[in-house]
Amino acid sequence: KNPLVLLAGPCVLEGYERSLYIGRRAKEIAYKLGIPYVFKASFDKANRSSYKGFRGPGLEEGLAVLKRIKQELNVPVVSDVHSEEQVGPAGKVLDVIQIPAFLCRQTDLLYAAAKTGKTVNVKKGQFMAPKDMKNVIDKIKSAGNEQIMLTERGASFGYNNLVVDMRSFPIMRSFGYPVIFDATHSVQLPGGGGTCSSGNREYVEYLTRAAVGAGVDGLFMEVHDNPQEALSDGPNMVCLDNLEDILKDALAIHEIAKKHF
Amino acid sequence: KNPLVLLAGPCVLEGYERSLYIGRRAKEIAYKLGIPYVFKASFDKANRSSYKGFRGPGLEEGLAVLKRIKQELNVPVVSDVHSEEQVGPAGKVLDVIQIPAFLCRQTDLLYAAAKTGKTVNVKKGQFMAPKDMKNVIDKIKSAGNEQIMLTERGASFGYNNLVVDMRSFPIMRSFGYPVIFDATHSVQLPGGGGTCSSGNREYVEYLTRAAVGAGVDGLFMEVHDNPQEALSDGPNMVCLDNLEDILKDALAIHEIAKKHF
Amino acid sequence: KNPLVLLAGPCVLEGYERSLYIGRRAKEIAYKLGIPYVFKASFDKANRSSYKGFRGPGLEEGLAVLKRIKQELNVPVVSDVHSEEQVGPAGKVLDVIQIPAFLCRQTDLLYAAAKTGKTVNVKKGQFMAPKDMKNVIDKIKSAGNEQIMLTERGASFGYNNLVVDMRSFPIMRSFGYPVIFDATHSVQLPGGGGTCSSGNREYVEYLTRAAVGAGVDGLFMEVHDNPQEALSDGPNMVCLDNLEDILKDALAIHEIAKKHF
Amino acid sequence: KNPLVLLAGPCVLEGYERSLYIGRRAKEIAYKLGIPYVFKASFDKANRSSYKGFRGPGLEEGLAVLKRIKQELNVPVVSDVHSEEQVGPAGKVLDVIQIPAFLCRQTDLLYAAAKTGKTVNVKKGQFMAPKDMKNVIDKIKSAGNEQIMLTERGASFGYNNLVVDMRSFPIMRSFGYPVIFDATHSVQLPGGGGTCSSGNREYVEYLTRAAVGAGVDGLFMEVHDNPQEALSDGPNMVCLDNLEDILKDALAIHEIAKKHF
Repeated sequence: KNPLVLLAGPCVLEGYERSLYIGRRAKEIAYKLGIPYVFKASFDKANRSSYKGFRGPGLEEGLAVLKRIKQELNVPVVSDVHSEEQVGPAGKVLDVIQIPAFLCRQTDLLYAAAKTGKTVNVKKGQFMAPKDMKNVIDKIKSAGNEQIMLTERGASFGYNNLVVDMRSFPIMRSFGYPVIFDATHSVQLPGGGGTCSSGNREYVEYLTRAAVGAGVDGLFMEVHDNPQEALSDGPNMVCLDNLEDILKDALAIHEIAKKHF
Repeated sequence: KNPLVLLAGPCVLEGYERSLYIGRRAKEIAYKLGIPYVFKASFDKANRSSYKGFRGPGLEEGLAVLKRIKQELNVPVVSDVHSEEQVGPAGKVLDVIQIPAFLCRQTDLLYAAAKTGKTVNVKKGQFMAPKDMKNVIDKIKSAGNEQIMLTERGASFGYNNLVVDMRSFPIMRSFGYPVIFDATHSVQLPGGGGTCSSGNREYVEYLTRAAVGAGVDGLFMEVHDNPQEALSDGPNMVCLDNLEDILKDALAIHEIAKKHF
Repeated sequence: KNPLVLLAGPCVLEGYERSLYIGRRAKEIAYKLGIPYVFKASFDKANRSSYKGFRGPGLEEGLAVLKRIKQELNVPVVSDVHSEEQVGPAGKVLDVIQIPAFLCRQTDLLYAAAKTGKTVNVKKGQFMAPKDMKNVIDKIKSAGNEQIMLTERGASFGYNNLVVDMRSFPIMRSFGYPVIFDATHSVQLPGGGGTCSSGNREYVEYLTRAAVGAGVDGLFMEVHDNPQEALSDGPNMVCLDNLEDILKDALAIHEIAKKHF
Repeated sequence: KNPLVLLAGPCVLEGYERSLYIGRRAKEIAYKLGIPYVFKASFDKANRSSYKGFRGPGLEEGLAVLKRIKQELNVPVVSDVHSEEQVGPAGKVLDVIQIPAFLCRQTDLLYAAAKTGKTVNVKKGQFMAPKDMKNVIDKIKSAGNEQIMLTERGASFGYNNLVVDMRSFPIMRSFGYPVIFDATHSVQLPGGGGTCSSGNREYVEYLTRAAVGAGVDGLFMEVHDNPQEALSDGPNMVCLDNLEDILKDALAIHEIAKKHF
């Protein structure tokens, strides 16, 4: 009843073997704690700061890898789409279709995702007020889909910085759909690295406990066995070695917070 | 030398006759003042706050109308694209392809627009630091196109509010490409109307004089003969009756500011 | 070890009897839960939005009331000072001298407070980065006082809104002094009521659980038996009837978070 | 008719001779352009980031220097006060009493300043919405003084950064009192230097032209013959060698903008 869900995996697919390895470990940790697990990885980083950033294997190869991991680990998978064209093929493999924060107001993309009948997870734009996500929900519902999740990943706070407004959790949960906290993108420093985004991994654990205290339905984390080697978003990724401790605290706080659900 | 350019028209195409009427009047006012004029109108508002907002005639019909207006008025036209698929057809009609602010980091869209060989005008995201637009320029240049314009349209400032940071003009102009001030979107109050964005048209003239004082290469304005009747963005649109006065002041200030270019 | 402290009371002194009543109930609730309690009330609201706002009994009468309450309840008391002149008399009664957020960089006020030898609790300015509170600490230490507390009460987020950046707790705790979360001022909407500040009491419980999850040493709350009747800050005050529930959750989460201290 | 006023001088008094030298040059430049000039310098920097920052000569000696400069240059003088106690002596020398931004809501300080009968110039707090300065005006008027000026010096924009919202000029001018643009503090990066504030002098000219375009009644600038040597706020000060050029442009733009007054 009201379990805390975990969406986790490498930021971008880094080949079948390594991605599977990361997913397997994340699953083991989650299951050990009784946490439902969804494997997450992007097949295409379509909005890197710089055109030189690694983008991933692309739609076709990426979906093939996600399908194999899904079967091998026997878990649902989530990935993000960036155009209507990607939604059709993606909907055949993914259990959860994720709409990136920058694209959270693109009506056609929301419609296309909704029409797949799969769960649609929309990241709140860095430029959006929490209450305005109600309009996003209405767009998805108007396409006949009520399988909706919203994800908080920080709001613009001056330049090259994000702040997580904890009021967003009760505000967005009041719409009646699960709300996820994206703990690793929330500590990004967008553009903070000049030609790439920087980040502060050390705050992930603090923000996670805070968000769970405010009340969330799940956590989203980019994890890696060696974040220094990660091909994208290394500075804000969580090391797999620390995942269990972070989740244990989150679970314990969730027990307290969910009485108010 | 260093003339101030005007990109103006209705927010969204409102039929050939009315759009032409608006464009004709805007052109007359601009030409009377010696200002180069580009007709602007969207064929599709792809990211309205609510799914019930008017979206426009769509790609095919919209481009046909834009083509007729371009020929009838004998002026260049600019419009915004929202997917790679739109870029090909759009590039056949438009002189300037505009990338919406929310999409300013979508690498594939920037590449596709760049590949048309047309001028690419990128609106700075509400979530972007001015200096980080350098990465956007590099994406376009890496696709072999140096016909680039950047447009300031305000930065996220808390919720449902934008602020124009006048430092962004010298910062972005230092990259070597023309910088435009979008005077009407900058006074938007995003989501401020609940299921639509509200706005403060009364500040357009102040922000325009300020931006031109800081130093810009052009102005972008959504204009209408009767903003109350406009099918999109009425609260922040400029009435055609006021356009000449706003431009006269802008021109006079531009004469002073451009000595520093 | 590492107990959670509570600083609570009416925003402004509302006469001896009612203030005592509020303090007695707050103390009972805190002690029942094993929480150390400090009575809080202002004798003078020196920076109300409007000059018509109720300001309180003033220094002399206010300190007399605080002294009686301190003796009657046998608890330490905290109140805020606004000028060097107030510090001397205040230091004779108060156990904790509080520096208001707007005044957190006033060197002479900090020095004067430090020189009393009492604990100095500085509220972080709405305009301050958490890391910059290190300079405030150094000012107090340079006056020979190491009894220091820092309090988070939200950062400016656009106009008429505050956001609590949960990263501020680990950042400020790293300086080596206790950090308090001011749960009721953090939900203020400064100037949101035109000639007074408005607020969102409903978010107090969420932000409290979040802040305790991130890790704090104490909570600051303005409480009242009937917030509608409060003479100041009613819209963001906590009703005494809800205090025990809020503290119970906070305590339970604190048990989890303090393992990381 | 609607001349542009200049308030300028060193940030802090740096001895009679050097302060006089700076004031004399600033006056000459201003008068040459027909601009009314007010000498500005602080006698005490009461809120430096660090306790080690230079604070100035203090009240008594500082007022004596200001009095001599006022007589020698035959111009009005402005300086800032930080406590009610300073207001009495300051009111005997100063023509304009300035309330620092952090203190703009301190009711007693506003009252005391108002009671001197001198002009009161209030800097808008970095945490204040422009419309809320109406309450500040009402505080001063309620003390029987209508000689009021408001000064814009930037709003908090994330951490360690300020943004000048050009809408603040028409909003604050609508209250019926002169509005000044503080061009040098507006380019400060508060706390940006660790134990001191940093700044971006290079943006002063851009923001000045922008603010004058939006419409102001005067400019406030900290100037120095050698900003590198300045004892406070060097990184954002204007070099006297550049003052004339900045003012010339400002005057020319003011001619255009003031038609709308």
